[in-house]
Amino acid sequence: MAIHGAWILLTLMSIWGVESKYMVYNTTSKIVSGKLNVHLVAHTHYDVGWLKTVDQYYVGSNNSIQRWGRDQSETVQEIVKQLINSGQLELINGGMCMHDEAAPHYIDMTDQTTLGHRFIKQEFNITPRIGWQIDPFGHSAVQAYLLSAEVGFDSLFFARIDYQDRAKRKDEKSLEVVWRGSKSLGSSAQIFAGAFPENYEPPNNFYYEVNDDSPIVQDDMELFDYNVPERVNEFVAAALSQANITQTNHVMWTMGTDFKYQYAHTWFRQMNKFIHYVNQDGRVNALYSTPLIYTDAKYATNKAWPLKTDDYFPHADRINAYWTGYFTSRPALKGYVRMMSAYYLAARQLEFFKGKSKSGPNTDYLADALALAQHHDAVSGISKQHVANDCAKRLSIGYEKAAKVVETSLASITRSSSKTDSGSPCLLLNISYCPASEVDLSNGKNLVVVVYNPLGWKREDVVRIPVIDENVMVKDHGGNEIKSQLLPLQKASLAIRNYYSMAYLGKSPSVTPKYWLAFSSSAPPLGFNTYFISSRKQKETTIAAPSENHVVYGSKGKQKDVIKVGPGNLKLVYSANQPKLIGYISSRNMIKESVRQSYSFYSGATDTQQASGAYIFRPNGMYSTKPDDQASFTVLRGPKYIRESIRGYIRSQECTRRRSMLNLSSLLVLYRSMMELGKKFGRDFLERIRDYRKDWTLDVNQPVAGNYYPINLGMYMKDDNKELSVLVDRSVGGTSIKDGQLELMLHRRLLQDDGRGVAEALNETVCVLNKCSGLTVVGKYYLKIDPLGEGAKWRRSFGQEIYSPFLLAFTEQEGNGWTNSHVASFSGMDPSYVLPDNVAMITLKELNDGKVLIRFAHLYEVEEDKDLSVMASVQLKNIFAHKKIIKVTEMSLSANQGRAEMEKKRLVWKVEGSSEEAPKVVRGGPVDPATLVVELAPMEIRTFIIDFEQKTKMSYVHCC
Amino acid sequence: MAIHGAWILLTLMSIWGVESKYMVYNTTSKIVSGKLNVHLVAHTHYDVGWLKTVDQYYVGSNNSIQRWGRDQSETVQEIVKQLINSGQLELINGGMCMHDEAAPHYIDMTDQTTLGHRFIKQEFNITPRIGWQIDPFGHSAVQAYLLSAEVGFDSLFFARIDYQDRAKRKDEKSLEVVWRGSKSLGSSAQIFAGAFPENYEPPNNFYYEVNDDSPIVQDDMELFDYNVPERVNEFVAAALSQANITQTNHVMWTMGTDFKYQYAHTWFRQMNKFIHYVNQDGRVNALYSTPLIYTDAKYATNKAWPLKTDDYFPHADRINAYWTGYFTSRPALKGYVRMMSAYYLAARQLEFFKGKSKSGPNTDYLADALALAQHHDAVSGISKQHVANDCAKRLSIGYEKAAKVVETSLASITRSSSKTDSGSPCLLLNISYCPASEVDLSNGKNLVVVVYNPLGWKREDVVRIPVIDENVMVKDHGGNEIKSQLLPLQKASLAIRNYYSMAYLGKSPSVTPKYWLAFSSSAPPLGFNTYFISSRKQKETTIAAPSENHVVYGSKGKQKDVIKVGPGNLKLVYSANQPKLIGYISSRNMIKESVRQSYSFYSGATDTQQASGAYIFRPNGMYSTKPDDQASFTVLRGPKYIRESIRGYIRSQECTRRRSMLNLSSLLVLYRSMMELGKKFGRDFLERIRDYRKDWTLDVNQPVAGNYYPINLGMYMKDDNKELSVLVDRSVGGTSIKDGQLELMLHRRLLQDDGRGVAEALNETVCVLNKCSGLTVVGKYYLKIDPLGEGAKWRRSFGQEIYSPFLLAFTEQEGNGWTNSHVASFSGMDPSYVLPDNVAMITLKELNDGKVLIRFAHLYEVEEDKDLSVMASVQLKNIFAHKKIIKVTEMSLSANQGRAEMEKKRLVWKVEGSSEEAPKVVRGGPVDPATLVVELAPMEIRTFIIDFEQKTKMSYVHCC
Repeated sequence: MAIHGAWILLTLMSIWGVESKYMVYNTTSKIVSGKLNVHLVAHTHYDVGWLKTVDQYYVGSNNSIQRWGRDQSETVQEIVKQLINSGQLELINGGMCMHDEAAPHYIDMTDQTTLGHRFIKQEFNITPRIGWQIDPFGHSAVQAYLLSAEVGFDSLFFARIDYQDRAKRKDEKSLEVVWRGSKSLGSSAQIFAGAFPENYEPPNNFYYEVNDDSPIVQDDMELFDYNVPERVNEFVAAALSQANITQTNHVMWTMGTDFKYQYAHTWFRQMNKFIHYVNQDGRVNALYSTPLIYTDAKYATNKAWPLKTDDYFPHADRINAYWTGYFTSRPALKGYVRMMSAYYLAARQLEFFKGKSKSGPNTDYLADALALAQHHDAVSGISKQHVANDCAKRLSIGYEKAAKVVETSLASITRSSSKTDSGSPCLLLNISYCPASEVDLSNGKNLVVVVYNPLGWKREDVVRIPVIDENVMVKDHGGNEIKSQLLPLQKASLAIRNYYSMAYLGKSPSVTPKYWLAFSSSAPPLGFNTYFISSRKQKETTIAAPSENHVVYGSKGKQKDVIKVGPGNLKLVYSANQPKLIGYISSRNMIKESVRQSYSFYSGATDTQQASGAYIFRPNGMYSTKPDDQASFTVLRGPKYIRESIRGYIRSQECTRRRSMLNLSSLLVLYRSMMELGKKFGRDFLERIRDYRKDWTLDVNQPVAGNYYPINLGMYMKDDNKELSVLVDRSVGGTSIKDGQLELMLHRRLLQDDGRGVAEALNETVCVLNKCSGLTVVGKYYLKIDPLGEGAKWRRSFGQEIYSPFLLAFTEQEGNGWTNSHVASFSGMDPSYVLPDNVAMITLKELNDGKVLIRFAHLYEVEEDKDLSVMASVQLKNIFAHKKIIKVTEMSLSANQGRAEMEKKRLVWKVEGSSEEAPKVVRGGPVDPATLVVELAPMEIRTFIIDFEQKTKMSYVHCC
Repeated sequence: MAIHGAWILLTLMSIWGVESKYMVYNTTSKIVSGKLNVHLVAHTHYDVGWLKTVDQYYVGSNNSIQRWGRDQSETVQEIVKQLINSGQLELINGGMCMHDEAAPHYIDMTDQTTLGHRFIKQEFNITPRIGWQIDPFGHSAVQAYLLSAEVGFDSLFFARIDYQDRAKRKDEKSLEVVWRGSKSLGSSAQIFAGAFPENYEPPNNFYYEVNDDSPIVQDDMELFDYNVPERVNEFVAAALSQANITQTNHVMWTMGTDFKYQYAHTWFRQMNKFIHYVNQDGRVNALYSTPLIYTDAKYATNKAWPLKTDDYFPHADRINAYWTGYFTSRPALKGYVRMMSAYYLAARQLEFFKGKSKSGPNTDYLADALALAQHHDAVSGISKQHVANDCAKRLSIGYEKAAKVVETSLASITRSSSKTDSGSPCLLLNISYCPASEVDLSNGKNLVVVVYNPLGWKREDVVRIPVIDENVMVKDHGGNEIKSQLLPLQKASLAIRNYYSMAYLGKSPSVTPKYWLAFSSSAPPLGFNTYFISSRKQKETTIAAPSENHVVYGSKGKQKDVIKVGPGNLKLVYSANQPKLIGYISSRNMIKESVRQSYSFYSGATDTQQASGAYIFRPNGMYSTKPDDQASFTVLRGPKYIRESIRGYIRSQECTRRRSMLNLSSLLVLYRSMMELGKKFGRDFLERIRDYRKDWTLDVNQPVAGNYYPINLGMYMKDDNKELSVLVDRSVGGTSIKDGQLELMLHRRLLQDDGRGVAEALNETVCVLNKCSGLTVVGKYYLKIDPLGEGAKWRRSFGQEIYSPFLLAFTEQEGNGWTNSHVASFSGMDPSYVLPDNVAMITLKELNDGKVLIRFAHLYEVEEDKDLSVMASVQLKNIFAHKKIIKVTEMSLSANQGRAEMEKKRLVWKVEGSSEEAPKVVRGGPVDPATLVVELAPMEIRTFIIDFEQKTKMSYVHCC
């Protein structure tokens, strides 16, 4: 937790520390100029789930401020507030959690920070000014410019940077820098960033938790072992040692670490003594401080600081110990979090359309669960299994509640008396299971499918659902039949469906669908269309029959031919005798590229010096899957699209078989092309060059693990003519180990712990009747080759579609009268308005006071796309066509203060060697209250709170 | 500590527990009749030295009440007092420490308890009513009748009893008994005594220290893992399980253990919840309780309890794990404690004669040090080495201060301007080192020796000191030369002298004495005589020359003769060719007995299941010392006495040599006679029968270790005609493994830990220049054979002389005029008065208010001696001949309340199966204020506080 747990105990000190007669220590010291100032920052670090679940930590240790009011007496609450007001207890970072910086989507990071910041503002009237990411395992550019500078922080502190980087920075006194994380936003979104010299713990021998064995200050001369001079000398020596690697005469001592201050007295008693005696000694000045006091002291020196760009990935804490495994650890959880993130975004929109319920179900639980999921031990995949389970359970409960909101909202908008079924079943499409669509239509019923589009653009996509009846037809709300396709469910898919149903639901599904029904659908921005599926008497449906549109290639069937599949002018070329992707043709773009796809795996190091584990990736040989083990794959030809169904689960099983020999393994997919350049990859695509770090000369000891980077949105590489892009459906690790080759780590299964605290092997299994096998994860990766300079459009705009898929809702209806009594098509915006192609509405949330929090994100960096890397404009009036806006207030990213106020307070740090004036960055101008147009410069995210005229009664009309 | 450390933390609860709004637990429950009452007793156990020194525990953890006032604010002090007054914080046991019950002398136990009890009375106005000996490793009869009943306790609780005994008592519900520890005092000194069912910890799964892993009560239904029903069920089950082995419907849960309640909140929070929810459940009644509340509840049931006599020694916690090693562990420390105990007794007398100094040196530090030394991890020998060192260091400092008192007092009484030298040097007589006597007298100086007798009897004894000059003579204060003897210092003695001087003083003594000068001296009761040692021109001294009075037998000199040595009609018979004691002749008593003495050692078990260690004695074979290794011995014939100098150090070295093979060893001495009976051994000699326990049928698994008992004063065995007695100079372990054979364990050296917490092997070494060898310990054992029924006089009266040797003080004087200007003979009592033979004055101490604390002990049990087991009378007027007594108040043993008040309050417990009236015990009657005669019945100890007329100016006269 960013809000540090000492508070209960601080209250003691006020009882303890101010009495007369017995020894009273003088701890009133302030900063002394001309002396080395040792800022003692009492802190503790409570993970909201790691070895124990968040609730276990909470009930054990009172760590979660979110709930603090319920469990503390009014007296204690009052004392806490006093301590906060006096500055003795400082609220820093202030999100619901200290999020990871590799695995979370930036929208989730923003949401969770907003949740915490607004709570703190409301409860304590405090706006945190300090970023405190002391535990995450590497630090992202997004954390620096977006989640620090854009929330109004004045500094950002962290502990974990690469050991080689750290050594050089200590040498050059450049642990503290000004960090400009965004190429597009530059100095307008910079932050003073300090990496600690070693970790976020006290210097050696200054640990004072209950049972710690650092020598206490024994200052009672009437007892034995009086040691004040020795302890003061040690203090001074440690301070001078730190001063030696630090600019200015201020050093910070992080007096705490994980799960400390259970009994704060043990710490404060010793710190009282140190401050008293060290200052009596006089060589250095020791004081109770906070990160804020430290930051202001640093700023007051008026120094210029080294400039830092890009990020702090990957992280290694020593040779052969690259923390790049966790980029992929627990891919199922990572996928679930991403799915829930999208659902939450859509659900809030529908919650707003309906009007937020004060008593009924709302999206708050899902918001909390998602916030906890962003914790650096959660989505990162490095908690214990039971904690990961708890994280998933919370998401599931949150989803159930949010689904009720969606259901109610859609019922309200469609004016349906029968509730739509948007519940959990269709979350299981990944195992080909959707009870709501697997219904018997032979008795004349219609299956009504509402297709909701959470994006601000009109959009088309294929809807694909399992059905049990082969005689079905699909009609739109105009009553026109539309083309649909039936695709036989593969045996392998059915096996997964049955196994996972047994494992997680305790029974097999009651019916077995034979087909996927696929049809092309469309939906207006922030709106829906309705489709009707019914039984047809005659066989009118286009069935992808084996003889005609359906070809199956098995791994045994050695065929010689090359197979080209794909819609229109886009073809993937497969080798049929060794079922592998071997080429890519885009005839529109004149691209014909040899692209090979293969699956391999790394075995993990098992030696005790450093094993591969949940955190650490330390490969010990790469193994190609044997020809016999190559995935069977199926090409399903239809009228509209191609679908690749290379099944990762086959690999997973294969790895399981080999584990006895290899012990540890990471499954990955490799894309090899003839292209040769470096590679880039997030919200910001950062250029990565193999075996290279911009900030220091890399000593390569792990040529694979040391080149792995977190892939959040996708990655691409390019040559002089083309770009090969891969987009992902969840965060993974990826790299390019050879020129022209991209690899993504898909899955990990390990039998050893890597010694970084979790003390549990990352061995995810799924069990039926006590028989367990390795967890199968089904995922999607998206591949495209574009002419040079044209890939960004796909990556950015299609990338947003990947993040925000259609939300489907189902209901059954007797007869065909639905459209007469229901709204079948809807847009939350002015039906004639769409957002610009380079802008996404990433938040639309009704606040408890009826106001609305809205965020727009420009999706492109400067110079990323020749057309779209430009200033964009958004018409608020069109977005809220059904309401009357009376006030628009631009806020900080986390919406806890006005943007103007934030800019006014912000400390302006100097950068070494730069001209006095930082280069001017163009950003969107103020919003004219009359026109209500929001401008967005490349990469800009703008956050607003909007007041509406309260009398406005929302009224929806059938549109489009 | 007996005063339990929770108090700081209890104060929190008063802040925490009484607020509104958040969850408030109902913890107001009291005893409910008709339900099972579960008394939750929050306690912690802070050893005053064990793994850390007392100061280390204190500064780490605030555990010592003695110092509490200095380190706590007035507010906290006030809260503590309120909690004590309300009964929430109870002061129990209340000594300075929780003394051991095997190794300490009862005088030391009494002194340390008095120190604590009077402090508590003064500071808190509290008289503890509960004995709480939860940790000592076996329980003595003296603890029951003397240190419990006679201090006014109403109950005594402990945890460690033999596992076989425990099993039977659980079965028979006789863990709680009425214990009559004294045959002589019977029901007049009985105590309700409860052994806990397992240990002094909570039931399994109810541990709540910071970091303990018992499940907390999770009662927040809004969080996961709500477990109130499960936890309540577990609570009820544990309570019923305990009720099943306990009489009445009251059970005590000891909610704490060693070094707990560092953060009391962690315990009280859970106990609050248990009390609340368990009482809501209603099957049992849970309440915050104390040992006193529990005791009163037990008493209120009006039940009769099983009777227990004798004691709870030896202790075994499981098969093969007899805690009988510690009876001898650290014999040097045990000897040092005993020596200091005697010195303290004498020093207080001299302090009283002079008048206690309010500012100058006093005996308080030695009192504190001795009190701490009685702790069950101190004199018991089972602390870590550094803690044992700390204990010895404190004694040493205390001695230095007390020696100043002695010096000043003697100077004052003798009217000497030159201070006597009663400092530390002559504590080293055990290594033949006494700088004060090793002076050059050739220049005509006199060495003045003041011989002080702390006993109430006139007394003669041999003074033996090292001298450097062979031409010396000794005169008494009348100027008459008295017979003296010079005994050559043995080479072995000089080697020890030099080695230990180097080891502990860092240098060899500057001179090397050649002789022991021995002369017979006498001193009046509580008084001194003065002797003068000077150089004689001619050789007038009787030198024990080898040719005449001095015969040396070495181990190599194989001689065939039998050698009889000894004064007058008492002869020890030695075999000269195998230098061993083989017989004993007392011609006066017509005793001629074959007695053989030999040295052997036990190797210790080393297996991991149970090794021999500091606590546990588990022999693995007994080894006789080989003939070659037999001790050399020296018989020094002189005019007055025999001296046996079989040197234990030879054994110790021998054992050291063999350690590589045997690993662990205990050195012992065996006395074998033809006598055959069982054996007895303390203040009370308890009958011990081999392989037998009175309270249960013993399952013998350790035929040696299971028969070892603590020997504090001595042991004896007898047959139809004779008694063979051995007295000891410190506490040791001893037994009789075969009929007619006595053995004493002299020394222990072990290379393995025995797994009972100290985690350090008992391997005492002494080092010079980094070369270490096993510690040599020099001790004395006293052997006598008497006709049946006559041994008690020697054991009791001579035993008191062993405990209280002469105190020697030295000064140098030019010329012979000492007696003209000094008081050379003195008695603190009326010179014509001596105490009866069966009474010892065990305490004479001036209190800070000028009053005097005095204790008399009858030394004999009923029926122990035909002449002396009778009522005795002491004339207070004669004792305080120099002062006017204005008031005599009889007190409880620990002098914290009037004896009459104590008797009035005492609970009278019923005993199963006994008649309503317990047999009448005769005790001394009230003290008539006119006659001031104190009567003492057998074994009675009476304690008085005496007020004197303050104007009385003490005036000493030359006496005797």
